[in-house]
Amino acid sequence: MMDRTERAGSLKIVGISGSLRSKSYNTALLHALGELAPPEFDISVHLINAIPLFNVDDLEAHGLPEPVVALRAVISAADAVIVASPEYNHSMSGAFKNTLDWLSRKPAVLADKPVLILSATNSPVGGARVQYDVRRVIESVYAHVLAMPEVFLGRAPEKFDGDGRLVDPATREALEKQLAAFRDWILRVRLPVHA
Amino acid sequence: MMDRTERAGSLKIVGISGSLRSKSYNTALLHALGELAPPEFDISVHLINAIPLFNVDDLEAHGLPEPVVALRAVISAADAVIVASPEYNHSMSGAFKNTLDWLSRKPAVLADKPVLILSATNSPVGGARVQYDVRRVIESVYAHVLAMPEVFLGRAPEKFDGDGRLVDPATREALEKQLAAFRDWILRVRLPVHA
Repeated sequence: MMDRTERAGSLKIVGISGSLRSKSYNTALLHALGELAPPEFDISVHLINAIPLFNVDDLEAHGLPEPVVALRAVISAADAVIVASPEYNHSMSGAFKNTLDWLSRKPAVLADKPVLILSATNSPVGGARVQYDVRRVIESVYAHVLAMPEVFLGRAPEKFDGDGRLVDPATREALEKQLAAFRDWILRVRLPVHA
Repeated sequence: MMDRTERAGSLKIVGISGSLRSKSYNTALLHALGELAPPEFDISVHLINAIPLFNVDDLEAHGLPEPVVALRAVISAADAVIVASPEYNHSMSGAFKNTLDWLSRKPAVLADKPVLILSATNSPVGGARVQYDVRRVIESVYAHVLAMPEVFLGRAPEKFDGDGRLVDPATREALEKQLAAFRDWILRVRLPVHA
């Protein structure tokens, strides 16, 4: 049986921003989720600024770099992952793909994790292109991405206030519904296969 | 009229490897092109190991980093670009996408450049997935990618010798044909639009 009576804060959720910019809308979006998510969600937001370029030579000589080890450990201990990437040149930021390249090294810490994909962009499209690239890449490492509903946060400068708070009512409502669906997805996916 | 009587070495071609590994098959593939290309091709191979992660904050504070400035200058002065990317998790390396993010900053140095996309992988698929991602991203910055023929270099360890020389006859022949088609593409694309 699925346990749908979780305690408040009992689901550890790791948020990863695909943007390195300090005033990133994607980072701001992840920080906004706390007040929109079900009470079970305990969300921590992580940046990838310290993750070096993936290089097999360095890996073989020195092992995983410390920032990669730290992020992998946080993900391993989490119940689910939420990623938010900007869209650069019709796909995800190179920096974010580079982080996924590190995370995919075996043991692939994203394997069997429930994942929610978000994106915020200045353009009206809101990252429709980037989300499908992220989906394909993250599914290639055996993660379980929430299929529906989707949220594409376009025209970001109109939806956040000057302090980076998400103030657009329609977006907040869409995210609340999506996060509730993600909660159900987490509970469904984490069931033992041979229960 | 199109001038098809180029001098030997008269077409400056910049090769960019999407892998940071010193024994990369993609880098080896770029080095192999010299003896397979038309005599007009003067190919230089460039690595992206020194390109830092793209960060708008750093860009605004310090401008373009020196390795980015250098690569952009080489591309600006070139007649064409050949890129070769490994396939990581069903797409291009994060490091290579990160380089494209820098190159796309205005003025976008890849705009109107003829581009040839290659890939080498250990797997039999040879990078079919990564090439279409690279194509879409590079076309988004207004480059002109050769449509056909395509070469997907799969099972790379069987096609290079111990010194990284491309020895597989079928692959060499396919690349010769492709490079001849790329030569025609370069001459076609660089014609003035209002000639």
